[in-house]
Amino acid sequence: MTKLVVAIGGNALQPAGESADPSAQRRRIEVTASRLTDLVAAGHDVVLTHGNGPQVGNILLQNEETRHLVPPMPLDVCGAESQALIGYLLEQALRNEFAARKINREVACVVKPIGPYYLRDDEILVKKAKGWKMAYDQRGGWRRIVPSPRPVDVIEKDIIRTLVGNGEGRLVIAAGGGGIPVIRKDGKLVGVEAVIDKDLAAAVLAKAIGWKHLVIATDVPQIALDFGKPSQRFLDHLTIAEAKKHLADGQFPPGSMGPKVEAVIEFLEHGGQHAVITDLEHLALAVAGQAGTQVGRA
Amino acid sequence: MTKLVVAIGGNALQPAGESADPSAQRRRIEVTASRLTDLVAAGHDVVLTHGNGPQVGNILLQNEETRHLVPPMPLDVCGAESQALIGYLLEQALRNEFAARKINREVACVVKPIGPYYLRDDEILVKKAKGWKMAYDQRGGWRRIVPSPRPVDVIEKDIIRTLVGNGEGRLVIAAGGGGIPVIRKDGKLVGVEAVIDKDLAAAVLAKAIGWKHLVIATDVPQIALDFGKPSQRFLDHLTIAEAKKHLADGQFPPGSMGPKVEAVIEFLEHGGQHAVITDLEHLALAVAGQAGTQVGRA
Repeated sequence: MTKLVVAIGGNALQPAGESADPSAQRRRIEVTASRLTDLVAAGHDVVLTHGNGPQVGNILLQNEETRHLVPPMPLDVCGAESQALIGYLLEQALRNEFAARKINREVACVVKPIGPYYLRDDEILVKKAKGWKMAYDQRGGWRRIVPSPRPVDVIEKDIIRTLVGNGEGRLVIAAGGGGIPVIRKDGKLVGVEAVIDKDLAAAVLAKAIGWKHLVIATDVPQIALDFGKPSQRFLDHLTIAEAKKHLADGQFPPGSMGPKVEAVIEFLEHGGQHAVITDLEHLALAVAGQAGTQVGRA
Repeated sequence: MTKLVVAIGGNALQPAGESADPSAQRRRIEVTASRLTDLVAAGHDVVLTHGNGPQVGNILLQNEETRHLVPPMPLDVCGAESQALIGYLLEQALRNEFAARKINREVACVVKPIGPYYLRDDEILVKKAKGWKMAYDQRGGWRRIVPSPRPVDVIEKDIIRTLVGNGEGRLVIAAGGGGIPVIRKDGKLVGVEAVIDKDLAAAVLAKAIGWKHLVIATDVPQIALDFGKPSQRFLDHLTIAEAKKHLADGQFPPGSMGPKVEAVIEFLEHGGQHAVITDLEHLALAVAGQAGTQVGRA
């Protein structure tokens, strides 16, 4: 009976290397919806956020490759489109899973306009966004890079709080893909071409609505030390102090476990009580304290 | 101080023949947001719905032209993407206009998952959706045609009612582009490749949340008889009986004023009290009864 902010990775929707075929994505999303429904069936309230990497990548590619036919939309608008794509399929799958299990709960998807905004280096980021920056990625060549600013707040926190309500048990999907990054400039909200880390966004979202429990679902069942080495060992428990030490020791690589651990530290140092990192398969067990890596303040 | 469901046409976002350039669309949306804010400033509660023709057309084109790179999404998913595209820009413009006028109101955009569903001819429609049907349009050649089923309900009416609340004055954007058409099949919600008329969707939306006033904003200030002929005359008032007679007489062409008048009749015959058809420029005056074509039950 806990209020849980749950962040699921893009691989819960379209695993790396798997087909972007709509029916394949739909099947994968149905499995994800089933695991999430386990939490709801156990009586928890859930606010759900999700990654959007493969989807927004596809939308950007579609925009770029047809620029002779249709003026391409900027990244913030493409991000909004990806939130709707995922949110629509997720909500439908959740409603169907609820119906199959005779769970009488509503699902609300406040898709795109959930935007964490940040106030640092505004001008610089806006200027950078005018032209694409490219960087070499050892995994496959040149890729577009965009700024990844730290989110500071969620614009629609009132809306999310209202939908979460008191006891109605609505499952709210929000801040998908990290939310759309917007800044305040001359008193106006302006979208910027940047990507917010979805786990940091989940931490800020939980803080904004005052929820104390954060669940990050990724593709490993637990956090490991010496990941991939013969000395690899999984962690059942972790404190903030230990997490910071392992981060400093380079145990959690950037772009992988690093941002997740950073998000959990951010969350626990700003009002959060407890966080757990696990994979979709162990979601319900991990929330019950019997799987995953449990992270506490001390 | 009235609760208004307002339907705005796609031309309020991207006028026919005008550029799909993001900055041009943004400027147009800012003008639309300003006219809508007039209603809010006058103290009305507003639930807003909108067309998506040009936008979903562009997304379909992007999907089709890049099918060698990215598996194309079906029409229901593309519709969801277009709702987020428009909803994001509209919400941002409304928030900025509210801030500029010191109006302390929230804007909620329950984008995509608002789907009216229909229960008629399910199997036939699903089969038709497997292959594209083409039809010749005298205005420009062959075009894809898709079924346009009548909406019967709005899945997320509970969510919309909750957001509308009591006195908080949130402006809720919902059922954009007519909503995503879904059917119930073997107890499951399934999206179909169809397009719902946005004005009929607005009528069903108003009924679903129990609101009594419907405003349809289009590109003419009033309904006309003998439109475009020397005998053309604009109508200040219209009853249901008169509207039905003019429809039967062919005064309101399909694909233009016809569906709007049908939506108004549908609305007034199912619980609605009053409707008005006008353009964006006359929106506030029309709601005050001083412009537009006022349509009453008798």
